[in-house]
Amino acid sequence: MTLLVTGWVAIDDIETPFAKVEGSLGGSATCAALAASLFTDVRLLAAVGEDFPDTMREKLHRPRIDASGVITVPGSKTSRWGARYSYDMNSRETWYPELGISVEWKPVIPPGWEDCTAACLAAGHPVDQRNLIRSLTSPRVTLVDTIKMFIDEAEEDLRETMRTADFVAMNESEAREMARMPSIARAGRALVSGGARNVIVKLGEYGAAFVGQEDYFVAPGYPLEEVVDPTGAGDAFAGGLMGYLDSVEKITPAEIRRGIIYGSTTASFAVEGFGPSRLLTLSRDDVEARYREFRALTHFDAGE
Amino acid sequence: MTLLVTGWVAIDDIETPFAKVEGSLGGSATCAALAASLFTDVRLLAAVGEDFPDTMREKLHRPRIDASGVITVPGSKTSRWGARYSYDMNSRETWYPELGISVEWKPVIPPGWEDCTAACLAAGHPVDQRNLIRSLTSPRVTLVDTIKMFIDEAEEDLRETMRTADFVAMNESEAREMARMPSIARAGRALVSGGARNVIVKLGEYGAAFVGQEDYFVAPGYPLEEVVDPTGAGDAFAGGLMGYLDSVEKITPAEIRRGIIYGSTTASFAVEGFGPSRLLTLSRDDVEARYREFRALTHFDAGE
Repeated sequence: MTLLVTGWVAIDDIETPFAKVEGSLGGSATCAALAASLFTDVRLLAAVGEDFPDTMREKLHRPRIDASGVITVPGSKTSRWGARYSYDMNSRETWYPELGISVEWKPVIPPGWEDCTAACLAAGHPVDQRNLIRSLTSPRVTLVDTIKMFIDEAEEDLRETMRTADFVAMNESEAREMARMPSIARAGRALVSGGARNVIVKLGEYGAAFVGQEDYFVAPGYPLEEVVDPTGAGDAFAGGLMGYLDSVEKITPAEIRRGIIYGSTTASFAVEGFGPSRLLTLSRDDVEARYREFRALTHFDAGE
Repeated sequence: MTLLVTGWVAIDDIETPFAKVEGSLGGSATCAALAASLFTDVRLLAAVGEDFPDTMREKLHRPRIDASGVITVPGSKTSRWGARYSYDMNSRETWYPELGISVEWKPVIPPGWEDCTAACLAAGHPVDQRNLIRSLTSPRVTLVDTIKMFIDEAEEDLRETMRTADFVAMNESEAREMARMPSIARAGRALVSGGARNVIVKLGEYGAAFVGQEDYFVAPGYPLEEVVDPTGAGDAFAGGLMGYLDSVEKITPAEIRRGIIYGSTTASFAVEGFGPSRLLTLSRDDVEARYREFRALTHFDAGE
């Protein structure tokens, strides 16, 4: 089984109330690929500029990641992303010191990669996301993530892409905006009625809600004692979920629930370090231990 | 088994983005008592003014509520509370058209009520809360709720009361403020280290986190399609939790988890109507059905 991961491989500047890191490896595809590679083999498709340092490229070469799809576009610059977080880490100001190649570039499946069994497409233009899904021969499961920019600029394209992918993931505020409904539950159901197969509403530190055609599942957030940097948590969530689903024999509602908890677990580790740094040291055993803890923290007996 | 419930019995003016209700029955003790009475016998202790209408008083006379402790203080006015909610119902502006008798009055246990087996003390001055707990002969379990006003005005008294009660319940922002910690998990643990036995952090639509000396439990919010009015949800939570705990044979960590889910369930019904109106029509069967649904929505299989 092999999971296609696309999105940004970028250079980040991050400032939290407690620390600051400049010019470090970042990007949605980086975080998703690292998280997914704990569960399955990953093919990473992204574009960087000529300025992308070898030291960062080396970090992407991992046993279960084929990074040959990280292509250097001549004459271009790597995308840069900046974020400054508020005291409680729940809100941030973002900026783009260099929009760079990730925005201009049109991703195309490299020859031989059409047989990927699953795809995790981090936020990107919905038309590109749709074309990528259609380029795969017979994927078992696909996910697209999106952000406010595409709801604002390409809503109709996004709606069509949502009908093409098996899962769409978005933040709470984005789901509310897109569905024009204030309740998370109603927003999720409205998006499913509108043609999305399964919607995952990411609630940040409060967890995630899954609204599908066959199931409804709510997961609380893992109770983290210390959040170092929330950057990439949503991507680590998507990567963990899709990595797990690519690894299972049959994708059932019960496996999707497990996948969401695996995604929440990898996301909870991601925020323990700056950018993807914690994901670089994470082991499957760490993930399994926290999964068990998650279950112990959330389950309760039947009623009277 | 008999649960003492105290707090405000008040008259509310509530405005949501969708509707407006003026001069209707409200108050923290009203909501907590109605929720608790689904599980156990309740003794309701509160003060109202001479203006308190008989029609409202009649609503408090229910099979499992002894409302003889709702005393009319001559020459005084019933407390009035107003709230206006934002579009997503997550924030509100509150005001007090009439601070009234609930603030001036010093609650005292009526003769014969010292044998209450449990107590649910809605927000009030921490010294009054402590005195009430100490007036009971041998309560099995006690809870105090609090609000920002008492953290600001009587923090040391509140800390002592927290050491006296078995549970303290507060909103997320209040827990963060009191513990001076941005993470919910750390704030809860810091309050427990400071002497609180068990802390419940109420997360509104995102559920609740329980941090105890023996257990840690996180419950997501019930995915409500429509929220009519969030007023009283926290009180219905406390009432449901304490009503359930008063009814069980032995108070174990597993029963506390169940109690938190019963509390979340009664709270999820409370917000379906204005003020306590939905609680007036609620049956134990409704609660049991939603409890089962809650469990089905949140449980997941063990990992690999």
